[in-house]
Amino acid sequence: MKIIGLQENLKQALSIVGCATSKNINLPILGNILIRAKDNIELITTDLEIGITHQLRGKIEKSGEITIDAKVFGEYVSLLPNQKIEIITEEEGEEVEVNCENYKTRIKGQSAKEFPLIPSIKKENQFKVKRNDFKEALSKVVFAVSNNESRLELSGVLFTFIDNQLVLAATDSFRLSEKKIACQIENQNQEERIIVPVKTIQELIKILNNSIELTEDSQEVLIYISDNQILFCLNSTELISRIISGQYPDYKQIIPEKNKSRIILSRAELLRAVKASAIFSKTGINDVGLSCSKDRVLISAASGQVGESSVELEAKVIGDDNDITINYRYLLDGLNSIEGDKVVLEVIDANAPCVFKPEKDESQLYIVMPLRQ
Amino acid sequence: MKIIGLQENLKQALSIVGCATSKNINLPILGNILIRAKDNIELITTDLEIGITHQLRGKIEKSGEITIDAKVFGEYVSLLPNQKIEIITEEEGEEVEVNCENYKTRIKGQSAKEFPLIPSIKKENQFKVKRNDFKEALSKVVFAVSNNESRLELSGVLFTFIDNQLVLAATDSFRLSEKKIACQIENQNQEERIIVPVKTIQELIKILNNSIELTEDSQEVLIYISDNQILFCLNSTELISRIISGQYPDYKQIIPEKNKSRIILSRAELLRAVKASAIFSKTGINDVGLSCSKDRVLISAASGQVGESSVELEAKVIGDDNDITINYRYLLDGLNSIEGDKVVLEVIDANAPCVFKPEKDESQLYIVMPLRQ
Repeated sequence: MKIIGLQENLKQALSIVGCATSKNINLPILGNILIRAKDNIELITTDLEIGITHQLRGKIEKSGEITIDAKVFGEYVSLLPNQKIEIITEEEGEEVEVNCENYKTRIKGQSAKEFPLIPSIKKENQFKVKRNDFKEALSKVVFAVSNNESRLELSGVLFTFIDNQLVLAATDSFRLSEKKIACQIENQNQEERIIVPVKTIQELIKILNNSIELTEDSQEVLIYISDNQILFCLNSTELISRIISGQYPDYKQIIPEKNKSRIILSRAELLRAVKASAIFSKTGINDVGLSCSKDRVLISAASGQVGESSVELEAKVIGDDNDITINYRYLLDGLNSIEGDKVVLEVIDANAPCVFKPEKDESQLYIVMPLRQ
Repeated sequence: MKIIGLQENLKQALSIVGCATSKNINLPILGNILIRAKDNIELITTDLEIGITHQLRGKIEKSGEITIDAKVFGEYVSLLPNQKIEIITEEEGEEVEVNCENYKTRIKGQSAKEFPLIPSIKKENQFKVKRNDFKEALSKVVFAVSNNESRLELSGVLFTFIDNQLVLAATDSFRLSEKKIACQIENQNQEERIIVPVKTIQELIKILNNSIELTEDSQEVLIYISDNQILFCLNSTELISRIISGQYPDYKQIIPEKNKSRIILSRAELLRAVKASAIFSKTGINDVGLSCSKDRVLISAASGQVGESSVELEAKVIGDDNDITINYRYLLDGLNSIEGDKVVLEVIDANAPCVFKPEKDESQLYIVMPLRQ
């Protein structure tokens, strides 16, 4: 194999495919990148759950393939000058020669034959979303995924494709985050519901943040689904992942339909007040109280060891006076994910789930179960 | 006590004095800040080795003193709006009331009587250095301090005051860094040599980075010495520290006076080449080879597991061809600390200490013992 590419392209490609490599004592080749030069130059990695394939722009002088340690190669390439890099292997060789100007290296590799197969999916029944919408939406739900391993179905983000919308939802049963974005759906006969592992979502966010591609095509992400795999196509990068089997809880039924108090206030002020109050919440309980009455919300916390705090904020309160106690971590997560200057808080009572959402936007919802007092 | 100060001043003050607080199970009050309002408002912390006193600008409405948890108070104040903050305690009280606009808090404190005394030094025999010179110089030597606890005298930076110079030196016996700066010395009769603990130096660097004070006075640091303490005065902040007793090795004798090869090359290129080669150095040995011959230096490394690398750099070589093997970590530390575009490397042979220094600057020196081959 002999291929030639630009350092900046190779560096970006390695940081994209690097996501899916893993340290595995039984299968050390999973720490390697498969470099394959045939019709195109492809860089491929997998941790057996996720597979990433990236097409590298460059020139193939001789086809071939080899695998090489992702960390060593990535670190080395990132230090090279931004010039042409030559990557050469002998036929059947297990070493890669990398040359770039005055830098010459031989890196030990391993035969491509040892590398696991990446599954493939037929590209039919396409779902198409806007790249930026998708990236934002993923980051608005991923934090709410459960890290309790006993409920596997909650360890991923639920994708529901319905009525030209993609609805993303995640919950750990204490709080739930939901975000809807527009989605072009080909041949839709019925609703599709799929649970995508949280690790896949995290890698997807990294890749979406990493690969700045400004052509028209690159503004969209194409999604394809098979029985147990999901494929995301982002211009020159493809990520394939297993799907979590199992029944996602019917979360729609816990979304409150009514409320007794509707509070509208500055998101930044509430965020600051919750952070300051959190210092005085009880260790391990993390309780912060919110009390609303006419025109104001009082945020308060008290612990025997540290002291007590109260912050009064101006707010528009529609409906009854109300009190609720919430884990401040859930509050901060929610407030950080909601868009806009104002946040709407809908409360029934101290024991019912309460709802946070942006002021004039029905596409986003964050629901928290209060702490019982 | 009742004092009033601006949030931004208090926040800065707390981040400065916060350096010297410590978690101490036997003496939990060391995690507190002493707030004392008498002639001035002083914030004081100590870990029994270092004491920091900072004068806060503000108004004293009623004098008094109290101690309060540094972490809680620091975090809380950093979240407050940049407005006036009122700090109030009852006489003999053990609670602090903090009010700032719509934020009201009561924080548990502890009586000031329990707080350890900060030692003081007579302000005579002053040493005066330029603040920026001093900050830069400290950061150019501190990394070379030994972390081997069996040689206490190497666990600090040596300050030598002589001939209107302050000479800073640090070594861990594998490498040595020395930096000289101008110093106004009052009543100097003889050379003063003092070992300042590395922790003091680290806190001093933090404080120098933290407190941006732009008055004329604040451009200088005054230093005073007693038998077992050293005092640094930086405008509104004073840091007092114990001194390490013991005899610092006479390091001057290991500074080579001659060399066989003098190499001048780009510091940035050498840094990059060493970083790239480091990937291929042997684990635990960290060896990188430098070979100079006419007009060039070859940087190389090879490990059985990873592969091998060589980088050829243009250089001006005066004298013999030469080979030397160095721990790349020491090389990177030195190259990062040396100023200027070009670095000078002076080599005797593979077993003698070699010298790195800036091209046209005799104030700085970095010496490394090579790895024996």
